[in-house]
Amino acid sequence: MGCPRRGRTIPFVPMSIVRRLDHTRYRVNDLEKSVKFYQEVLGLEEVKRHKSPRGSELAFLKAPESDELIELCHFPNSGPVEVQEDLTHLAFIVDSLEEFGKHLDSIGVKFSDGPTMKPDGSGGFAFVDAPEGYEVELIERR
Amino acid sequence: MGCPRRGRTIPFVPMSIVRRLDHTRYRVNDLEKSVKFYQEVLGLEEVKRHKSPRGSELAFLKAPESDELIELCHFPNSGPVEVQEDLTHLAFIVDSLEEFGKHLDSIGVKFSDGPTMKPDGSGGFAFVDAPEGYEVELIERR
Repeated sequence: MGCPRRGRTIPFVPMSIVRRLDHTRYRVNDLEKSVKFYQEVLGLEEVKRHKSPRGSELAFLKAPESDELIELCHFPNSGPVEVQEDLTHLAFIVDSLEEFGKHLDSIGVKFSDGPTMKPDGSGGFAFVDAPEGYEVELIERR
Repeated sequence: MGCPRRGRTIPFVPMSIVRRLDHTRYRVNDLEKSVKFYQEVLGLEEVKRHKSPRGSELAFLKAPESDELIELCHFPNSGPVEVQEDLTHLAFIVDSLEEFGKHLDSIGVKFSDGPTMKPDGSGGFAFVDAPEGYEVELIERR
């Protein structure tokens, strides 16, 4: 998927360090609800779904220009998910916060914070609440 | 940084969806301890550090072949970080779990789980505990 892995130039990486980030994993209580949010609100594509060896149900989601995936995991044996406030977020690039805001309006979702535009005109950022206490940041860079 | 953004082919992405994942953010209690872990154990590079508008201290870390960054955030105003067990992890690709294990041995760090190699010879996975309850998965794919 990623350009450096597609052929040609593979950089030298010592075996003692990691090569690349593959995915970020968030465990959730309600897998379908979360998958729906990341699909409908952010536009991510579900690219893979399977059961792990220990029996957790995994859905992998992808942004159009990203190699790295988001792994949503349902594994009730670990107990109910409780995400502490202000613990973690996923930050995505959008072309325009204004246009993305119109999309949110059209599906009845509101920014939880912002958009906050930088005074120098270089873009801005905003937040949306994802299900179960997770957060998503949207960044516009000009 | 990323290939599709470097020129030539920029895919059409409607303004209503996100373009790409920029970073995953984890808040931590001890920023220096976490930065040291991601640098020394995983080999990530600190590429940026600054204070956010609300006063949080941010360090951005990068794997050699990744566009996406890890944002480590120190913001004591949000209270002490408490990461629920089995909540989230970052998964990185390594060339060889065996070689990576030798590196861990050399710095006195142990896998918390695995390596578990797949019976079909297609690789395997292992885990390492990161500071403050976060987890890291290492994946070898053949």
